[in-house]
Amino acid sequence: MNMAFEMARMTVGQTGKNPAVGAVIVKAGKVIGMGAHLGYGKPHAERQALASCNESPQGADIYVTLEPCSHYGKTPPCTEAIIEAGISRVFYASKDLNPKVSGHKVLLDAGVQVAHTPDTAIDRFYAPFFRHLESGRPNVTLKCAVSLDGKLALDDGTSTWITGEAARTDVHYERHLHDAILVGGGTLMHDDPKLTARIEGGGDSPVPVILLGREKLSDGQKILDHPKRPIIYTANEANLKYDETCDVRVGEWTLDAILADLYAEGISSLFVEGGATVLTSFIKQQLYDRILLYVAPKIFGESRHALYKEQISSMEEIVQLELIDVEKLGSDLKLTYGKA
Amino acid sequence: MNMAFEMARMTVGQTGKNPAVGAVIVKAGKVIGMGAHLGYGKPHAERQALASCNESPQGADIYVTLEPCSHYGKTPPCTEAIIEAGISRVFYASKDLNPKVSGHKVLLDAGVQVAHTPDTAIDRFYAPFFRHLESGRPNVTLKCAVSLDGKLALDDGTSTWITGEAARTDVHYERHLHDAILVGGGTLMHDDPKLTARIEGGGDSPVPVILLGREKLSDGQKILDHPKRPIIYTANEANLKYDETCDVRVGEWTLDAILADLYAEGISSLFVEGGATVLTSFIKQQLYDRILLYVAPKIFGESRHALYKEQISSMEEIVQLELIDVEKLGSDLKLTYGKA
Repeated sequence: MNMAFEMARMTVGQTGKNPAVGAVIVKAGKVIGMGAHLGYGKPHAERQALASCNESPQGADIYVTLEPCSHYGKTPPCTEAIIEAGISRVFYASKDLNPKVSGHKVLLDAGVQVAHTPDTAIDRFYAPFFRHLESGRPNVTLKCAVSLDGKLALDDGTSTWITGEAARTDVHYERHLHDAILVGGGTLMHDDPKLTARIEGGGDSPVPVILLGREKLSDGQKILDHPKRPIIYTANEANLKYDETCDVRVGEWTLDAILADLYAEGISSLFVEGGATVLTSFIKQQLYDRILLYVAPKIFGESRHALYKEQISSMEEIVQLELIDVEKLGSDLKLTYGKA
Repeated sequence: MNMAFEMARMTVGQTGKNPAVGAVIVKAGKVIGMGAHLGYGKPHAERQALASCNESPQGADIYVTLEPCSHYGKTPPCTEAIIEAGISRVFYASKDLNPKVSGHKVLLDAGVQVAHTPDTAIDRFYAPFFRHLESGRPNVTLKCAVSLDGKLALDDGTSTWITGEAARTDVHYERHLHDAILVGGGTLMHDDPKLTARIEGGGDSPVPVILLGREKLSDGQKILDHPKRPIIYTANEANLKYDETCDVRVGEWTLDAILADLYAEGISSLFVEGGATVLTSFIKQQLYDRILLYVAPKIFGESRHALYKEQISSMEEIVQLELIDVEKLGSDLKLTYGKA
């Protein structure tokens, strides 16, 4: 199982929306095959391991870091491949909390021995993939490109090209990994962003979600040409004029209500791109799972466009995070933080 | 020479105030010895390489990344060891710009063949060690412990323990590497710091330098017990009352004048620890070589205690830096930037 976990960890970041998984096949005390899920849409770890066998896997054991899937997604279910190959025993470490997955039961029903052998490190490894199933809201990633002194823009609002090309490319990849992308009305009007995922080979653009409040959307915004139908949360009925191209939802929306509403639509991951007011609200209400900071090697000085616009009066009230990952992207840094 | 450079790079960070150096000894086309300078006060690379030889180095060639030293420092001159060992030819990549070093000439005078074989990458590697010889002022490192949003303290001034233990230990090591340490009067009065280098096995404390302006030093400050005699730059003659324990220099001091004054005293590296006003002045006047940021996984929100307190009105005027290094220290980050 340790070897399977090593393989899973080795492929983190290349499996898109899927978790990274490793599998090892053992027969008569000898490793006869191994594999990992190498990319979104590609065969799962179990199939890779089976295909790698240098002798028949009939009667062998398979060790896999995550409960084998039993449903048709981008690829056919792994349970089917395991049953067809004549595997005798399946050992898996973490339960797949997705209600669509019941690999354990399917395998048992087919006469395969199955053992769930929990492992704290592996459970922790998969936690982010299943968090939304427990929280009942989408996983929320707050994204922000900042100067070294935590500013989103100069005081007058100038902010074009804070970070370099590698960081901007990475943002498109992150968009691609999320079901929906959210920006506030101010950012929409000021930047007129496309909010698409422009990555090599296409990319799957997230559903654009706009928090408009009382503001009115203007004609000709690029968002109106988005490949996915935008969802607009607004308190202003005037925005209903866009209801042919957008889902315009009028009401006094709180962030909690919006997240519940999106989750009910099947959005399980949300990428929040700002601006400062929106980011501050999400941070203040603790509605996030990850904060992604792209830090440019620049100092902007005094500016009202700060990452967090609230004033904190004691050390007990500061926002305490946990450093998860650091990556160099050209001369920028990508810092990933979770809640402490 | 490439091998010698690899050895030098491998030992970066463990040689204290000395540059990292590698040396390789070749005789009849065969490598017969190699070595690097492994730590401050320990034998230089040339001596390590000579000691490692498995046959007599008589008549051999030595390749060394930096011009061999010819003066007594913590250890006797390398030229002496090279001459005694009967080395025939010395190839070195970078010139030692320290006027005390004239290894090339000393070796030639002793009848050893010497060749300076410049290498751009190696010259760039040693540039920081010799920068002060060209700039005529100490190398200046600005150090700052900040929250993720670039704040040194909450708005009310609270700042204790921004970063964790690993980062604080690292600060003591950095102090140890510098000849002098500078703080402003505000930081001195507010934090009453010791400004010593407390590292395992002792540590060499830098000379404390205080920018007092018109403020008056108060009795009982810990700085008055510093093992080195503090230097106080002040515009207020009342501070002369401390001239038994401190060098009190009264006048209208600019940063430029202070740096020139310190350099004239033999201070070739200065560690600037704040506070915000002092850091802002050094940044604004471009009087720095490195900015070291210890970034804690915390968000402080709105606060007047920011890294850079000037307001910038156009992208042309922002402070543009270059990312040199990233290091994880527990849950904090150590970011090293140079001028772009």
